[in-house]
Amino acid sequence: MSNTNNDQIESEGDERFSIKFLGTGNAAGVPVRGCSCTVCIKATANKDLRRESCCAVIEFGEQRILLDAGVFDLKYRFPENSLTAILLTHFHPDHVQGLFPFRWGGNDSIDTYAPNDKEGCGDLYKNPGVLNFYTLIAFDHFYIGEVLITPVPLTHSKITLGFCFEHRNVKVAYLTDTVGLPKKTEAFLRYWKPDVMVIDCAFPPQEIRPRNHNDINMVLKAYEEFKPKQMLLTHIGHKLDQWLNEYEQKLPEGISVVRDNEIYVF
Amino acid sequence: MSNTNNDQIESEGDERFSIKFLGTGNAAGVPVRGCSCTVCIKATANKDLRRESCCAVIEFGEQRILLDAGVFDLKYRFPENSLTAILLTHFHPDHVQGLFPFRWGGNDSIDTYAPNDKEGCGDLYKNPGVLNFYTLIAFDHFYIGEVLITPVPLTHSKITLGFCFEHRNVKVAYLTDTVGLPKKTEAFLRYWKPDVMVIDCAFPPQEIRPRNHNDINMVLKAYEEFKPKQMLLTHIGHKLDQWLNEYEQKLPEGISVVRDNEIYVF
Repeated sequence: MSNTNNDQIESEGDERFSIKFLGTGNAAGVPVRGCSCTVCIKATANKDLRRESCCAVIEFGEQRILLDAGVFDLKYRFPENSLTAILLTHFHPDHVQGLFPFRWGGNDSIDTYAPNDKEGCGDLYKNPGVLNFYTLIAFDHFYIGEVLITPVPLTHSKITLGFCFEHRNVKVAYLTDTVGLPKKTEAFLRYWKPDVMVIDCAFPPQEIRPRNHNDINMVLKAYEEFKPKQMLLTHIGHKLDQWLNEYEQKLPEGISVVRDNEIYVF
Repeated sequence: MSNTNNDQIESEGDERFSIKFLGTGNAAGVPVRGCSCTVCIKATANKDLRRESCCAVIEFGEQRILLDAGVFDLKYRFPENSLTAILLTHFHPDHVQGLFPFRWGGNDSIDTYAPNDKEGCGDLYKNPGVLNFYTLIAFDHFYIGEVLITPVPLTHSKITLGFCFEHRNVKVAYLTDTVGLPKKTEAFLRYWKPDVMVIDCAFPPQEIRPRNHNDINMVLKAYEEFKPKQMLLTHIGHKLDQWLNEYEQKLPEGISVVRDNEIYVF
């Protein structure tokens, strides 16, 4: 499992399973408007330090799956017929906002898998454009190409699913947004044994259990519990970035904090 | 009334009334994803030819009002305490999408005036962040600084208001999104006599009356009817841009097609 930030592995036909993180920030992103903390001031000046809202693209063979849509330049990144499917964890705006303009262009029809949330977001259901919505049921697994995908419920303020990907001998769980995990999902993960866990971590260690998103204490507990070979933290807030500047090196070796545009190959 | 694309008039304290158009495109914007028309190919290559979704900023004296929020970089454009207010014409995503990330930062509270649309868009009402919502009633005028603002109903697929601004001796009507105008709004405009009409024009001339947005035929009719000194077209789609490449010079002298980042001073 390696981490690279060049685009070579994106060439069509690479048989390995990769995730490129297009956005690793929370809803506010980094920098936060009006914030004068060191992290936000540096990110305002240096685009490489910014965090857009959550969005990733998974590639294997000639398949390309968009995982959430928090970034705004999707129409430039994914021209017609370049996406096999879209997976949505939930309908909070920071995870779907990039679809508002994207849906209106192209003659393709993109299968878009989402939780059973009747409310959706804005008029995405009413005016889907190129999006062809399918509703997912927790633990009802399905295939895209040769990847087996199991949606698992998460604990959040809106109906939310994580996705467990199994590709050849590699198991990758993508678990955001969530604070802790529902018991059924914990049981599934204990049985399934993920090699890699990508997990929501918005906050530095908190004195009381946070709402809606994990803090460092909670992801450390999950790391001990599930013992993945690699844990990748995403949905980062600027206060966690401040904390990481001081303490990142004290995290266990298997835990990494992802940056926008990093690619992980498994 | 002059048109400039430099930022000099944005210095604080300029007593003139100005509109800077941050976005002049329709919901798809220009380029449209996957489109290989000449307009879209050129706009993909040249950022100056792109059109973001509708958004403008009005300035007079030290007041600065954001008018819709179709662009995505608002947190960089408008730091804390830089906006007096936000006016929303309606809650379609292409007019509010920039508020999703923007609302989460800053310690200011921004008065945000919007139509009486109980649905809103996404979770903007539930989680307003810095936005302090006020509901507007058509024809119930109000002041921001010394500018008198009269909201007027428009004809669209969602509850929509245009805004008639009166600043010293200049009257500017901002009328998007709309297809034609309701009779009450026509009557108001005949009485009020706008000097400048900014109006929705998404399409080239159509054989049948378009849905939701004006075409060139309809804005020509409005130009004859209300005889503004200046008419500015916005909410442009790529097919209208194609048509304009051939026929723009045949439009009456008082009609201009606005581009992103152009500033008009009245």
